[in-house]
Amino acid sequence: MTSKDFGVREGELAVELPAKTDAGLYYIGRIRTPWRARQDCPKNARESDAVCTIELDEKWSAGLKDLASCSHIIVLYWMDKSPRNLVLQVPRHYGEPRGTFALRSPARPNPIAMSVVRLLGIEGGKLSVVGLDCLDGTPLLDLKPYFASTDSVPDAVVGWHWRGD
Amino acid sequence: MTSKDFGVREGELAVELPAKTDAGLYYIGRIRTPWRARQDCPKNARESDAVCTIELDEKWSAGLKDLASCSHIIVLYWMDKSPRNLVLQVPRHYGEPRGTFALRSPARPNPIAMSVVRLLGIEGGKLSVVGLDCLDGTPLLDLKPYFASTDSVPDAVVGWHWRGD
Repeated sequence: MTSKDFGVREGELAVELPAKTDAGLYYIGRIRTPWRARQDCPKNARESDAVCTIELDEKWSAGLKDLASCSHIIVLYWMDKSPRNLVLQVPRHYGEPRGTFALRSPARPNPIAMSVVRLLGIEGGKLSVVGLDCLDGTPLLDLKPYFASTDSVPDAVVGWHWRGD
Repeated sequence: MTSKDFGVREGELAVELPAKTDAGLYYIGRIRTPWRARQDCPKNARESDAVCTIELDEKWSAGLKDLASCSHIIVLYWMDKSPRNLVLQVPRHYGEPRGTFALRSPARPNPIAMSVVRLLGIEGGKLSVVGLDCLDGTPLLDLKPYFASTDSVPDAVVGWHWRGD
């Protein structure tokens, strides 16, 4: 283990990354948002009702059939600017070290972000959605229908985060 | 476009995959389930209350700190046996072509599956969970806390799927 590299803060822990990757991803489009710098992004997606645009590359556009009938979709995207070696990190707004897998921080071994968004409409290969908080130009990895029957757990609890509110 | 390859069914459409991938994934562990063949897997995760085990590689285990306080977690995993070139597919139990992005089928450009699971406990690097439906040995990509505030949408609708029930 090592904690050299890009400004690891006190209490943070970085590990040596594996020598090679195990599988490859295709970027299938880009996400267009109003945010050009990390400090401009909303802290979480419910903080903003900005309409964002998901631009799917034409190659894949036939895959959008039937998706317009979904009120909500799952968007997977690639946080390509994030360090991948942090296992403990100190989020600025919490101030104490947390395990990476207990956080939604973009810094993780595989920086895949998951957002549930409200779908406003689809025109050609462009989807208008509400509920994203990422940088403009973020690479798109996947779109999926959101099924309340398997994906919605209204009474789920994140114990470390719960403040009684 | 082409529709050669692995048994594309009538009504399905395959595209030529890009010549190269854009980013790399690390397998960070393996998922242990009772299912050794695809036909044995539950059709969806709510069909089974089998307890499955997520084995996180030791390298990353410090990242589990604080996760045990979560009642539910998001599991991302890699469907490494799936074709990646289908944009229209005919799921056996629906019988008509659907767009890949309107389905949760493992066949998609980036075969990343997302499941919301109930966390029973963590011992060392092993998590006991309920709510998975994948093959034994499936590669693990990520674990995240499930926040009801952003991830739960009880009234979400998948129009093409809705049968009034």
